[in-house]
Amino acid sequence: MTPAASQVFTTLLSHGPLTRAEVGRRTRLSPAAVTKAIRPLMELGYLVEGLDEEAPPAVGRPANLVWVDGGRALFIGIKVTGDEIIAVLADLCCRVRLSRHVRLTGREPEAVLPVITALVQELLTEADGFGVRVRGLGIAISGDVDRAEGVVRYSPFLEWRDVPLAEIAGTATGLPVTVDNDVRALTVAEHWFGAGVGLSDFALVTVGAGIGCGLVVHGREVAGAHGVAGEIGHLSLDPQGPLCHCGNRGCVEAIAADPAILRAVRAVTGKQVNDAAEALELAHAGEPGVREVYARAGEAIGKAIGFLVNILGPERVVISGEGLAAYDLVAEDIRDAFGVSAFGTASRCDVVTRPLPFTEWARGAAATAIQSFMGSGM
Amino acid sequence: MTPAASQVFTTLLSHGPLTRAEVGRRTRLSPAAVTKAIRPLMELGYLVEGLDEEAPPAVGRPANLVWVDGGRALFIGIKVTGDEIIAVLADLCCRVRLSRHVRLTGREPEAVLPVITALVQELLTEADGFGVRVRGLGIAISGDVDRAEGVVRYSPFLEWRDVPLAEIAGTATGLPVTVDNDVRALTVAEHWFGAGVGLSDFALVTVGAGIGCGLVVHGREVAGAHGVAGEIGHLSLDPQGPLCHCGNRGCVEAIAADPAILRAVRAVTGKQVNDAAEALELAHAGEPGVREVYARAGEAIGKAIGFLVNILGPERVVISGEGLAAYDLVAEDIRDAFGVSAFGTASRCDVVTRPLPFTEWARGAAATAIQSFMGSGM
Repeated sequence: MTPAASQVFTTLLSHGPLTRAEVGRRTRLSPAAVTKAIRPLMELGYLVEGLDEEAPPAVGRPANLVWVDGGRALFIGIKVTGDEIIAVLADLCCRVRLSRHVRLTGREPEAVLPVITALVQELLTEADGFGVRVRGLGIAISGDVDRAEGVVRYSPFLEWRDVPLAEIAGTATGLPVTVDNDVRALTVAEHWFGAGVGLSDFALVTVGAGIGCGLVVHGREVAGAHGVAGEIGHLSLDPQGPLCHCGNRGCVEAIAADPAILRAVRAVTGKQVNDAAEALELAHAGEPGVREVYARAGEAIGKAIGFLVNILGPERVVISGEGLAAYDLVAEDIRDAFGVSAFGTASRCDVVTRPLPFTEWARGAAATAIQSFMGSGM
Repeated sequence: MTPAASQVFTTLLSHGPLTRAEVGRRTRLSPAAVTKAIRPLMELGYLVEGLDEEAPPAVGRPANLVWVDGGRALFIGIKVTGDEIIAVLADLCCRVRLSRHVRLTGREPEAVLPVITALVQELLTEADGFGVRVRGLGIAISGDVDRAEGVVRYSPFLEWRDVPLAEIAGTATGLPVTVDNDVRALTVAEHWFGAGVGLSDFALVTVGAGIGCGLVVHGREVAGAHGVAGEIGHLSLDPQGPLCHCGNRGCVEAIAADPAILRAVRAVTGKQVNDAAEALELAHAGEPGVREVYARAGEAIGKAIGFLVNILGPERVVISGEGLAAYDLVAEDIRDAFGVSAFGTASRCDVVTRPLPFTEWARGAAATAIQSFMGSGM
């Protein structure tokens, strides 16, 4: 697909149905370029055109509208966490038709890959019922993922190194496979359908087991020339801060990610706290010192967002992730630290929170499969 | 000018002369789109096409090449510093034909504006000798500059606030005026003609009286949704660090900019040190404690570049600015701190230094005028 066709397609995904004139206005393409981009997609049935039946008849001839025919193709999106796998069957409009959750019994590739394969087989069988082919599989996984090569370079939570996941999953399922970092995948979904729709510059920050960040600049995701981008988790905010697993001190992740919060809550209370939910309970119950642990976490997140905004100046920063459960405790700390850290008018950046369940992350994985499908010439 | 035409034009500026096929390959435009982009520019005389006379005749018909006819238009670029004004007369290829330096006797707008006007008049007279019209004036100035509005919002070194510079200079000179932040302007020149040629993602970091940073992502400069971007000077690296004029502690600028270095050298030596050159002399002479001041500055710069690279993952970072004079003292500290701060493969980013004299900054100002001229429909 040409860049113009891809732009027209994603514009229709996010904003459709639209008139051709509106497509041209939003993509800044000429009427001829819009026609040229739309024609082959229409011939393949991915786009359809019809009358706008909701337009009032009094204004004359009703306008023709173009939209994506979601039912023309299906995709499977999978998000792998340390504990479970979430899979969705999504259509070409990235609408979720079905979703599945499976608990993992182990984290090594030998334990995870058969679960993925079985889930895909199950969803392929379901897809038969729709009478539409599944055109691709997207897998989203945390850590350093080389999308172009389809390799998980290093996933700390799973303890995977150099796993050629796209090749393995492709062989097992017979589908074209796209493997991407999970936060980047969620950023694609937010850009197409969420809080990033219509924005050319925004950032998604996720807090939870780790600290993640996806970036869109000039309307496109930032991947990093060497595979690293949006790595705000390892900004070292305080040379006197706690030691991070990366070797530096005072990284955002060493202060604000779940394991760091657990460690600090255990240290301050002397109690055996098992997980983030228990730590949060203690904070809500007013256990001495625990609220301060969360305040420091909020401060680190707010400061890191300030750094990000000083460097990139996005229109909006979306905060999400399973760590949002603690948000009512830390909202003010995040806001205050962001305000102090943002330079001048950078503080006008819109910082918002959005709870995004893991099915939304799996939908992001499906979105990366749709991206690959569009890029493959279909 | 359409986005495609602008892309073709800047590609020819950076890489020309090129065959039409090569223009298509580099811009990823179809042959028809290249033809469509080139035609009006050729009709206006800004592009010319001719035989490649250096091609060996044995290969058959010599290839036609397209290039920018630099002599078709002239532009004036001005860089304003706290002490002097540097002006260049540049052609459409942004080649410098003439340059002028004038010392300033005051920094207030009433002292600076007449100097700018007189310099422009002098260069307009010179331009008459070339028999070509001057099509625009670019003014580059440090601080918070709103290019779209043509207003200097706040320039700390000049102590200007809300000066409608484009309007004033336009009225005084009769030229279309583009006003931009000086580091952003230099970034345009580096992107078109310098260490950023052919890169889609790079950063320029300038050290000296202040710490500046210009960014190119996906092939385009980053301006920031609210006018702030590349603001690495106010990343607060150390909560225990020296107080910055922005109100935070441990900002890069409070450690590594010339005034901070001067303050620290005075404090450690007890001597009245007047300027950066004197401080540097003391360091080279082995005055106790001075080398350490520079080491801390280098460390702050390296760490800030690490933060930038972790967030954006550019292909290259170029370090420049008048502070480069101290580079032989701090190169290792910058490199070490960058290596520690960069996460994983982000450390593969190419970090290089380039001495860029102020005429190069003025050339950047001329480049912004060429950008505006191209965007205006010519």
